[in-house]
Formats: sequence, C-alpha cells, structure tokens
Amino acid sequence: MERTLIKETTQKIGETVLLKGWIDTKRDHGKIAFIDLRDRTGIVQVFAQGSQVEGLHAEDVIYITGTVQARPEKLINPKLETGTVEVVAEKVELVSKAAELPFDMSKEDIEAELPIQLDYRSLVLRHKKIKSIFKVQQVIIDSFREALKAKDFLEFQAPSIISSVPEGGAEVFKVKYFDYETYLSQSPQLYKSLLVGAFERVFSVNKIFRAEPSVTSRHLTEATSLDAEFGFIDSYQDVLDMQEYVVRYIFRQVEEKCAAELKLFNATLPNLADKIPMIKLREAQEIIFKRTGRDCRNEKDLSPEDEREICKWSAETHGSDLIFISHFLSDKKPFYVYPDPDEPEFAYSVDLLGRGVEWSSGGQRLNDYQTILEHVKKWGLKEEDIELYLQSFRYGVPPLAGFALGAERMTMQILGLKNIREATLFPRDMERVDIRLSTVQPKEKTKQQ
Amino acid sequence: MERTLIKETTQKIGETVLLKGWIDTKRDHGKIAFIDLRDRTGIVQVFAQGSQVEGLHAEDVIYITGTVQARPEKLINPKLETGTVEVVAEKVELVSKAAELPFDMSKEDIEAELPIQLDYRSLVLRHKKIKSIFKVQQVIIDSFREALKAKDFLEFQAPSIISSVPEGGAEVFKVKYFDYETYLSQSPQLYKSLLVGAFERVFSVNKIFRAEPSVTSRHLTEATSLDAEFGFIDSYQDVLDMQEYVVRYIFRQVEEKCAAELKLFNATLPNLADKIPMIKLREAQEIIFKRTGRDCRNEKDLSPEDEREICKWSAETHGSDLIFISHFLSDKKPFYVYPDPDEPEFAYSVDLLGRGVEWSSGGQRLNDYQTILEHVKKWGLKEEDIELYLQSFRYGVPPLAGFALGAERMTMQILGLKNIREATLFPRDMERVDIRLSTVQPKEKTKQQ
Repeated sequence: MERTLIKETTQKIGETVLLKGWIDTKRDHGKIAFIDLRDRTGIVQVFAQGSQVEGLHAEDVIYITGTVQARPEKLINPKLETGTVEVVAEKVELVSKAAELPFDMSKEDIEAELPIQLDYRSLVLRHKKIKSIFKVQQVIIDSFREALKAKDFLEFQAPSIISSVPEGGAEVFKVKYFDYETYLSQSPQLYKSLLVGAFERVFSVNKIFRAEPSVTSRHLTEATSLDAEFGFIDSYQDVLDMQEYVVRYIFRQVEEKCAAELKLFNATLPNLADKIPMIKLREAQEIIFKRTGRDCRNEKDLSPEDEREICKWSAETHGSDLIFISHFLSDKKPFYVYPDPDEPEFAYSVDLLGRGVEWSSGGQRLNDYQTILEHVKKWGLKEEDIELYLQSFRYGVPPLAGFALGAERMTMQILGLKNIREATLFPRDMERVDIRLSTVQPKEKTKQQ
Repeated sequence: MERTLIKETTQKIGETVLLKGWIDTKRDHGKIAFIDLRDRTGIVQVFAQGSQVEGLHAEDVIYITGTVQARPEKLINPKLETGTVEVVAEKVELVSKAAELPFDMSKEDIEAELPIQLDYRSLVLRHKKIKSIFKVQQVIIDSFREALKAKDFLEFQAPSIISSVPEGGAEVFKVKYFDYETYLSQSPQLYKSLLVGAFERVFSVNKIFRAEPSVTSRHLTEATSLDAEFGFIDSYQDVLDMQEYVVRYIFRQVEEKCAAELKLFNATLPNLADKIPMIKLREAQEIIFKRTGRDCRNEKDLSPEDEREICKWSAETHGSDLIFISHFLSDKKPFYVYPDPDEPEFAYSVDLLGRGVEWSSGGQRLNDYQTILEHVKKWGLKEEDIELYLQSFRYGVPPLAGFALGAERMTMQILGLKNIREATLFPRDMERVDIRLSTVQPKEKTKQQ
C-alpha cells in the first residue's frame, strides 16, 4: 500500500491508509492506547489496542495500517491540524527502535539547560518548537534570495579558503594548505566587490568564520552570512533603500509563511513604520547623552548599551524597531570604506540595528583605483595580498555599495531567542564542535603538540 | 536623469536616455567612433564623435547621455538583442578609468592559456562567454533547490568545520581551532543523514574540501556540493528515482533559461531516453570486457577508461548519455552503506555517470542502530568521533537514502568545458588560492616553519 502523509488523513475518512512516522507521544490506558504519530507534514492521533503497541515509546519509528475515522464533534482537537480525525490501528509495525529519552520531548519547551540540549542536538532537533526555528531560518534565507533575484542580482558561491588576511586580526582560523598557510574567510567582502566589475549585482549565502576567543550568547565561530553588493549607485542612500527593501520583503514572507512558527514563540515581527529612520553616529550619541546622561559622544562605536538605547529611541519617536546608523569613523573602518567628502573623518558606512542589536553592516565602497591604492598604503596593507581585488578596480568599476545580514542573528531576533546557538543547527564555539571538544581532545594533550 | 538599462533601449526610440556601463569594444574611425556599451542586461551600440570618446578604451566605465535611434533596415544587427537601435551620444562621462588590457577581451574566446586567465580572473570574468558559465551554474543550483523543495525537502546549512575525520584519509585540511585540532568537511554525509531523524527530507548546497595532492583537470580543493537525503524509502530504487527526477528538472530548466548560453558553448544537454538505465558494477565490467577485451571484472571500481566505455555503451544501446552503476563493493565503501541482503559483499550504493565521468554518488544508508555499531567496529572507527550521528540513530531513524551532485562538475559536463577550474569563479588547487601561492609564500620559507 502506498504511504499516506499525515496531513492528508483528513481527506481520507473511511479509507484504510498506511502511515509512516515517529511516535511523538503515547498515552497508555491499559487495554487501549493513544499514539500521536508524527511525520514531516504533521501529527495525527492513532487509536490502538494496548497489545498492539506494547513496549513502544516516544521516537520509535513505526508504520501503521489503519482506518481513518471522523471524530465526534465534541472530541475534535482544534490544536491539531488533523484534529477532526483519528486513525484506528489495524497493524502496527516497528521499523526502528528508539532508546529511552533523556528528557521529556512532549513538553512545550524542553526542560534542560542549553549545553545539555546541545549535547543531545540530534534528538532535540526533533522537538516541534526547535524544528520550527529552522523553517523560519529557511524562509529568511530564501526570501533574501528571492528579493535580490527580483532585482537582477546573481547568486555566487563565495570561497571559504583564502590566501591572506589583508587586515590581520587574531580572530582568524589558520588552515594548513599543503606547503602553505591559508585561512578561513571572515567575510566575502573583497570577492563580492570585485565581482561587481563582472556582474554588476551579486549576492551570496555563505559561511563566515571567526575565531572568537570567548563564549558569548551572540557569537559563533561559523555563521551564515547573507551578502549583497551592487554597482552604479547614485549615492550611499541606495544601499539603505536596497537593504530596507530586502528586510521588508523577508518580514513579509516570514509573516505569510511562518504564522504557526511565530505563534509557537509568541513572536511578532519588528515594526518598521513607513521608513526605517537613519541617523549619524554622532547624532545617535548626542541623543543617548541627552536621554541617559551617559557621554559616549567621542566613542568610535556604539556599545551594546548604546545600541539598546538608540533602538528604544527609534521605537518611541519613529515607531520603528529598526534604525540605520551611518557615518562611523573612517579610520576605524576597513580600507575600502568611502569617506564622506563633506566630512572625510566619517565614512559612508551604515549599520542596521534592530531590537537593541546589530543586524547588518554595509555602506558605500571606494571604486577609484588610485584612491584605493592610497588607502591600502595608509592602512598598512600589502598589495599582493589583495591582488585579485585590486585587479578588478584597475580595470574599471562603477560606484558600488553593499551590505551583509547575519542569518542566525536575524532568526534569533525575529523569534526572540536568547542565545544564537538556538538559531544554528550545529553551533560551533571555542569549546564545542558538535560535541564538547575537551571530551575527545584533552587540552593537555593538544597543547603539547 | 534616471538610468536606462541597455535592454530597455529598444523600447525608447526617439527618447533621450542615460546609459551606464563598461566599454565592451570601441571602433575608432577618426572623426567618428562606435562604442559597444555593456551593462548587466546586454550590449548596445553607441555612435559618438571621435572627440567625445578620445582616450577611452575597453573596460572604462562611462555614463552616456544620448538619443535612441532606430537603425535602418540594412544596418540591423541580428546578433545583438538591441540590434534594431543605436544610441547617438550627446554627453560622455568617464567614471572609472581602466588600465590597458593584457589581452583582447573582444575575441569570442580569450586567447591566453588557462593559468594566465586565472591570474587575471577578475578581468576574465567580464568576458561574455566566461560570465555565462556562472549564469548556467546558478540555474543548475537553483533548479536543484526548486526540484527538492517541491518534494517537501528542507534546505539546511551544513557545517564546514568538523571535530573529527571518522574515516581518516590524508586528503583532509586541518584547522587550528583554539587549543584544538579540527578539520574542513569533505562531505555533509553524516549531518544530512542525522537530520533525516528530525526533518525527514533535507538538502544542502554546501562547500566540501579535499586536500587533493595533485593538479588535475577535474579536482578542486574547495567545491560546491548539492546534497540530498530522505527517509521512509521503500527500497534503494527510490534514490535512483529521486535523482533522475532532480536531474531531469535541472536539464529542463537549463534548456529553458540558458538557451543563449548553451549556444555560446555549442553545447547540448545530455540525452536521457525514457529512463536512465541502471546496471550493477559487475555487469558493467562484463560489458566492458566483452566490448574491449579489457578485463576489469575483479576491480573494485571503474577506471576513468571504464567510465567512458560504459557511457558509450549506454548511449549506443539505451540512447541515454547518463547511466546509474550500482552495487559497489561494501567493504570498499564507507561504514554507513547498506549491503544488499542477497549479496552482502555488494552495497546499495549508486553512482550516476554521464558523458564518460561521475556526476554523483549516493545510495541507501544503514538505519538500524545495532548494525551501524557493528559496522563502526568493523571499519575501525571510534564511536565518540561520530557521536551526534550515532545519537540520531539511537533514537529511531527510518530507512533512508541520498545522493550528492557536484555543482562544478555538472556545469563543466553540461557546457563541455575541458577543465573544472573554468566552472568555478575562484578555483583553488594545491598551487593556487586566487594567486599562485608560490608568489607570496616561497616554499623554502613555509617549509621551515
């Protein structure tokens, strides 16, 4: 008999069906038992004789042949998509036996600390609420793609292994590469910029790697970056507009396609008002000073506290949970940022903040080859380390800009998750790569190597 | 004035437009000149006074204000999408000056050896034919996604950094990871399999890394893998069917969306007949022996020569350029392959060959936890090295199968490219990561480290 998907059962009242799935929960009443059977399309209640399901428990994989029955009016379960039916088991086949679970998976939230949950990641990912995080993430990533493809952007595959770290930095992973030393990319910035010379508009969904030497709730060593870059801009305002368009598009898609998932997390999408407001760094610092008395007016960046405060201000005065901050200090930014000609100590660099944290960073980039060379010298970089990038600009590149959104960070902020590890299938930090590294590689041993 | 895209010019006869793009070619006739202007949408001919474009040459970025004119019937250029019009320049603005080109970019094919072309990758990627390779590649990857999403597969982000190399192998890159040693993933196999426990059907477009210690025309150290895995199969036939469905879907999309690109390469898609034939390894070897007298009947795998021969046979006798080969030797395959119960020395592993080379590999995987443990022992692996994988199967996983296609290899085969580097934006091999590594890291120096 052909398999019937669980969501299809409501259309098969009176028919005999073959269902295949996992036991989500089992309620034993001695002679009779109820099983909530789960497959990729949903959950349905199965009524069985106790003897038919003896010894079975949660996560066992079973195939059930049975008859679909309409439930009496008063037994309809409005919480279940298939709540109007139940399946009466005729034959129950055990296909894969599950070990006893380390914690109750039927609770609305798993009652175990996050590190324990990560130790049991393979199991935990089966939990309805956890699973739904990655449906939302996929909608976010897909929507990013769709939005940009609609604007003529070409997706490209950004490289992970790079030959040099032009801007140095300790937070880079080294890769032994035959007789050479290479590194894992911290950003596809130089690649997406140089590709503007060929394709004009490009985007990439790619991995970025940071050897973040601390364990925090918002850093991963391996993350998914949503990068876009485009040429022939009229001004850096274009990058704000493109970003706003993309973010609105993503929000709309998540709202439409993930209503159930948002509800599970009691989450609402950020308010955007008519237009995401934009202010300069110094203006933001002035506002923060006036509101809190905290004088950050000479700082080169906003502190986490500042970010929360300015988001609060934006929500209160503009009705927008998101806000652009522009004009960070040119010499604190990478060599390719475009200084504002009217006040060159500040750059056309733009962060998008939302709900108190940074969502993206971007801005206009230098496109004049001579100016780039000057910056390369001023920033103390070696030309040969960025040859392919320089080459592109040597052969003519229009004014360009771009931005990068973090897929995990966006997922986290939209769903109101507390820790970015929750927004990653297999989070990596300095202590964990799937398992806790210390359990397989005692530090004493590896340090001696 | 707002920018007009080049492909829109045919709709703007008589209007004054602002065009922005690169000089593709310039034909100087003294007092007058013709410029082929290029943007992301195409090329249009611009007529200018010699004085307006003096000193300009290929790859300069220019903004042109001019009037669109219909061309007289006999001057229509059927080779150009905009061949019915030309733009008479009124104002020409130089926006970004290009250096003199190292070779002629206006030729149908760039006349430089591949290594030289790769040294100039940023420039070469602007060439019409080269650029079109990556449009085709994007259609291949997008179509892979679309085909599987239509079948309820969820896309996931596979990790690149892994904590152990369960199956060993010299061809793995090591990553220094704080106090630990980690590696770059050679395949998301274990991750996609374990995720079947949670999502039932998953796919991934991800990077795989191989420390291939030789420079060949079909190996890259960093490549893009199109991975799929799904549960509740009835038999390993399901993985052939799913793969055939995906490949047919991709071919249809490429045919529809890339007609112009295929024509540039004089390429036709492989013939598939009604059904892709499937034969066992030993049958294939018997056929090869009969056809050529070459006795490979005891070999564990097909040699490149064998692959070409069996593809030839498939085309001749089945009218199919693609063919599945199944039943490779169980003990020469990874621990997770599913032995055929009728002849356990052979496994339900399946390669897809096309036009003489391997396109994909896949098969049914073990799903019974105890059998997996036995294989782990027999293969000499350590359980703790694959804990997350084992965990999934400890908690119940249905019969499952999957496959992986190489994005670059498919691009190469469809377009008839001679070297896989041509099918990668930024090819990496043991001697090159963008630039030739020896130019920045002399071996003498790095070897001493």
